[in-house]
Parts: sequence; C-alpha cells; structure tokens
Amino acid sequence: MVNQTFYNLGTAPSVIRQLFAYGLEQAKLVGPENVFDYSLGNPSIPAPKKVNASIHKIVDETDSIHLHGYSMAPGFEEPRQAIADDLSHRFGLPVKASELFLTCGAAPALISVIKALVVDGDSEIMVIAPFFPEYAPFIAANGGKMVMVPADTEAFQVHLDQVEQRITPHTQAIIVNSPNNPSGVVYTEETLRGLAALLERKSSQYGHPIYIIADEPYRELVYGGVKVPFIPNLYKNTIVCYSYSKSLSLPGERIGYVYVPSFAEDSAAVYATVSGAARAIGHVCPPTLMQKVVGLCAREQPDLQAYDENRTLLYNSLREMGYECAKPDGAFYLFVKAPGGDANAFSEKAKREHNLLVVPADGFGCPGYFRLSYCVSNDMIRRSLPAFRAMMKAYC
Amino acid sequence: MVNQTFYNLGTAPSVIRQLFAYGLEQAKLVGPENVFDYSLGNPSIPAPKKVNASIHKIVDETDSIHLHGYSMAPGFEEPRQAIADDLSHRFGLPVKASELFLTCGAAPALISVIKALVVDGDSEIMVIAPFFPEYAPFIAANGGKMVMVPADTEAFQVHLDQVEQRITPHTQAIIVNSPNNPSGVVYTEETLRGLAALLERKSSQYGHPIYIIADEPYRELVYGGVKVPFIPNLYKNTIVCYSYSKSLSLPGERIGYVYVPSFAEDSAAVYATVSGAARAIGHVCPPTLMQKVVGLCAREQPDLQAYDENRTLLYNSLREMGYECAKPDGAFYLFVKAPGGDANAFSEKAKREHNLLVVPADGFGCPGYFRLSYCVSNDMIRRSLPAFRAMMKAYC
Repeated sequence: MVNQTFYNLGTAPSVIRQLFAYGLEQAKLVGPENVFDYSLGNPSIPAPKKVNASIHKIVDETDSIHLHGYSMAPGFEEPRQAIADDLSHRFGLPVKASELFLTCGAAPALISVIKALVVDGDSEIMVIAPFFPEYAPFIAANGGKMVMVPADTEAFQVHLDQVEQRITPHTQAIIVNSPNNPSGVVYTEETLRGLAALLERKSSQYGHPIYIIADEPYRELVYGGVKVPFIPNLYKNTIVCYSYSKSLSLPGERIGYVYVPSFAEDSAAVYATVSGAARAIGHVCPPTLMQKVVGLCAREQPDLQAYDENRTLLYNSLREMGYECAKPDGAFYLFVKAPGGDANAFSEKAKREHNLLVVPADGFGCPGYFRLSYCVSNDMIRRSLPAFRAMMKAYC
Repeated sequence: MVNQTFYNLGTAPSVIRQLFAYGLEQAKLVGPENVFDYSLGNPSIPAPKKVNASIHKIVDETDSIHLHGYSMAPGFEEPRQAIADDLSHRFGLPVKASELFLTCGAAPALISVIKALVVDGDSEIMVIAPFFPEYAPFIAANGGKMVMVPADTEAFQVHLDQVEQRITPHTQAIIVNSPNNPSGVVYTEETLRGLAALLERKSSQYGHPIYIIADEPYRELVYGGVKVPFIPNLYKNTIVCYSYSKSLSLPGERIGYVYVPSFAEDSAAVYATVSGAARAIGHVCPPTLMQKVVGLCAREQPDLQAYDENRTLLYNSLREMGYECAKPDGAFYLFVKAPGGDANAFSEKAKREHNLLVVPADGFGCPGYFRLSYCVSNDMIRRSLPAFRAMMKAYC
C-alpha cells in the first residue's frame, strides 16, 4: 500500500552510486591508491575562503532570531538583490530581486519549473542527449512526458533538425544544460541562436511560448577563455535554474535560484506558478544562513586551476592513447567513446581488472560513451593512466 | 500555459501573511508599540547558544570539501546516529540511524510521506480540525484527498466516533499534530490510545495498515509538566515527521527528519518510497552544515521560560476578561472562541480599531475561533490587553 512510482524510484539501483560504493570496498582490499574513481561529480576544490569567513561573520553579527528565522517564501530581499546585481553586472541586463526565487539548490529549482510548465498529462519537456539522468524522474514523477533529442556525437552541440522534428503542440519547454553534464561541452552562441530562432518560429506556429529551461550549475566552470552565452540574452522566454553547488563548491548546502526574467512571456504567471509549485513540495524559504552567505559571496569566482590541470592532463593523455573525447570546455567531465563500442562492457572490465571506475552513458541517453568526473586529485589521474592504456590495448 | 493548480496556489492570498504585512504598514503610521501582532508562528526565543557555537566549531574543524559536499540522500551517518541516540534515550525505544531520513524541515518530511502513501486518486489522508492549513495543499497538490474530522470544541481532543465514521477502504493515514497548531492543546495518552485501538481495528477490517503521520514540530514545547506521549510507543504504524524549527528555534534553516520505525508494517517499503518521493521533489541531502549542527545539538532543550510567561499572562488575562480558550499546554498558540461567534468579523474589527492582529481559524477548519501566536514579547502582550478588553466589551 505504498505509491509504486516512488517505491520504484526509491529502490532503483544507481550505476554511479554502485560504482562509488564498489570503489570504497576495493580501497579497503587493495589500498585507496590503487582505486581510480571517476564516478562522482562532487567538487574537489574547497569553497572560496570567503564562504567560511562569511559564515563566521554572519553568525557573529546577526541576531539569532532573524538569522535562523523564516524568510519570505522566495528568500530574504538582501541576498536576492546581491544576486540580481551580480547577474546584471556580468551579463549586461537589468535583473531585479523580484525576478528571483531562491531554492534549496538546482534540483528543486528545476522541479518547481517543470511542475509549473506541465499543464496536463500530455505536456512534453524536451531534453538533449547526453543529459543529466535525474531529468527523467524529475519530469516523469511530476506529471510530464520526457522527449529526448538524440546526441550529436560529432560535436556534442544540438541537432536542430532533430529538435524541430520532435516539437509538438504539447511541447512546453526544452532543458538546455551548458556547460553540459556529462559531455563537458559548452553550447556555442551559434547553436543557441539557432535554437532560439527555431523555438520562436515554433512558438508562434503553435500560439504559445516554448520556454528554454536553462539548467546552469556549471556556468562558471569553463576553461581556456571559452565564453558561456547567457541564454536570456539570446532568447527571451528563458527560465534560469542555478545552483551554487559547483561555483562555490557548496553542493551539500542546497542553495540556488530560479530566475524568471520579466521580459519573458507570461512572466508574472510563470513566477507565481513556480512559487505555488515550490509551496506544494515544501521548497519555500531555503536555508537562511546560506541565503546570507550567497548574499555576501555572489561575486566570488571559483579558482579553477586544479580542474583545468586535471582536464588538460586527462584529455591530452587519453587522446594520445587513441581515445576519442568530446572537447571539454566546461564543467568537470570528460566524455569518452568506449573502445569496442560497448560502454557497459568497457566499464565492467575496467572495474574488474583495474579498479578503474567510469560511468557508462546509457543513463545519459548516449550509449557507447562513458563519463569521467575529473573533480579528483591530479595524482589519481597520473596513477590511473596505465590502466587507461591497458584498457585501450585490450580493445585494439 | 502554466499549471492551474500551482498558479492558484502561488497566487492564493494568505490571511496570516496579509495580517503580518498590514501590521508592518501600520507600525510605520502609528508606531510599532501600538501594533499588537499575534499572526506569525515564528519562534521569538533565540536558538540555544550551542547552535552558533557548533556552527563556528564545525566550520573551523571540518574539511570544507566534506562539510559543504553532498551527503548521502538520507543525510550523513553521524547526525542520524546522534538523533537516533537522543530519541532512544528519551522515549525508551531502540531507534536506529537507518530508520531516519533527514529532510529540509517538516514540510518536505510531511510531503514525502504523503506522496509515499497516496497510491492513487482515491487515497484519503485524514486530518483533525483544527489543523495546520498547509495540510490542504500538501495533500491535494500531491494527489490525495483530504478528509477532515470536525473539531472537538469542548476539549480540543479527538472525536473518535467522528474519525471512525470517516474511515473508508481508501484511508491511508491520519495526521496527528500534538502539541497542536493552532489549538496549543496536547492530545492525552487516553486520546491517543483510543485512536490507536480504533486504527488497529479498522486496519484489520480493511486488510491494510492505516498509518498515523505524527507531525511533531512542537514536541518539545510543552508547559506545566504535561507529557507529550511519543506515538510510536502507542501505535506501531506511526511515521514521525519532525523539524528542529521550534525546539532549536531554527525554522529558516530547514532541517528535520522522517522516522519510519522498523516495527511498522511494510517499514522497508515505506522508507524506500519516502526516499523515492523525496528524490522526485528534489529533497535529498538536506543542508549539510545544519545536519552537523543538529548532530551536535540533538540533545539540547529549548529554554521555554519566555513562552511560558507569555502563555500564563495571556491565558489568565483573557479568561479574566471572559474569553473562552482551549487549555494551552503546548506549542506557542492560544485558541480563542470569538465573542459574537464570527471570528472573521472579530479579527477585522480588532485590526481596524485596535491594530490587534489575530488569525481567524476558518483556514484551520474551525470557524468561530481565532489563533494567537504568543511567540512575541511579553511587553507587547501587556500593551495589547486593553485592546482585548475593549473588544470583549464591544461584544457584550
């Protein structure tokens, strides 16, 4: 007598978590230095020093009843204003505090927006492979239909013709995740302008807006001078979901926001509906101390040197061995074509023979590839290279 | 093209918030000392000193990547163990860490449990008037039907015959909130034993467990030596939803838990389903710093002296004036019968003529009564007494 959907979701095995658990067990047997775990996307650089300094300062200087008390549903005014100022400053558009709804991280932000846009059982939310696997339960368990656009396995950009073929009168939104998890690719301005033009055309054909849900937790994690276009500047009907998980290395603290630009169509209704959806799932007033931390640290930028060194070492080494990889311009993932074509077999063999833990990308909607999370120590990468070499040799 | 249910929820006026906003406006006009705001249930005593001391200590002594990184979905092991130990110690039953699922406060705890127990569109969740108004959207917006048991306006206990009349084959659970918001009443052991016996009988009649969802954020807020029975000790099919909002004065920090006793029927399935529901609404891994704070502070007890003084002053004064009130043994609410019988009219008149802000209890399922939140300054209570006296006079 329990809900079957949620039972299934609560008992579904997670490939990533299973690999991680296997790694912990093996570390006890063979020593942690002989396990090469590329499974988890948990930041490996500490939060900027200002984060902990801000926690001390806020706790010391704020009245306890105010600090730990309820904020209004969308958050305290002050941090929302600080975030709005930061966004305005960086992206050259006038963001207002009233357009922001603070959330307990990116997941509730996305879920609230999905719930707001799923109007009935026919509503479709489009995702572009490869994609973050949690999109599937986020959409399905909240009443929508997920429609997948197959991966562009050449450049890992977006096949616009494939998007177009899949748009129907029920298409409510398309989730755009750039820098992308799992590919590490940044969508170019050209890609996004093409998508914007297509969505404008189809929106007017069907007589209602098709929103872009810009899922951007990796927005600040980008290397080699590559620019991440801010999508609201290219397409007005964009709703941004953000989390400070990666940029401030605070994934456990659950703090992020939804940004509904007032220039988006029906923006007032969308904002109100997002807040109603958040209320229905208990996501109003995110953690107040962390709201205030973000208020002080919104302008902090992550020190990406460690990730960038990992990226360069891993990408260059794997390419030299003959692996084919997507060009890793952002996030902390490298997306690799499995030698032999079967990523599950590759992952299993790498695990059994080398304690090398890589995530096959079937769950990301892109079979035949695997994901490496390089938010690890540079030293682990060095030690893992012989294993990658041996694996390549075994498939040649 | 937005979801109508959530739009309505996001735009629904809140009586409480409107009163609060009115009070802020009036304070600017007539001075804050002339506004008597009993609308909000926000703790007015600071968090125990150990809370902020623990925040400093944890931040100083914990590796940043671990502290601010993801925990497992149900939370870190250590705070779950500390909470389990505290519950075991206080209530004499062996609670295990693995029976606890930490959540972002009581709302997501309740919602996850409701979602887990709503198996189809016929599923019924029972509530006992007067009840916390958010139960209505929590149940309806998550697919269930709310069934209300009318208030016992004599003792504000539970009319068991009224419960029995409303139990059907679709009854999945009954929410029990004691100490109660809004009545301030603590359900007696006798009441709860009677309810337990009834539910056992009806569960076996219908061949499936009817769970008690024990919503207990006020469990530690109790006065005059009254004991709050721990419901799992009286009824095995109890699922506890708790928040540290009131006991540690941390409502803004969003930290609480679901406790599914392993002796409850289908406990493993219920726990898994709660975790699947939490995943579907993005409520896994609650704020990590606050998890650790609760780990250190689980045994802290609130200093209730200020609330108790307020309670005594307000209750005695109002009774003396002729008001009829429920016996306020817990929480920080006084529930008062509106002179004249129309609580909305009383509230409106009190607001307009005296800047006295009281919440009519229609939304709590108990028309003709109003709620006073006495988590305010003792001084405000003193200053408000002439207004209460004048109001009573106007109705005599």
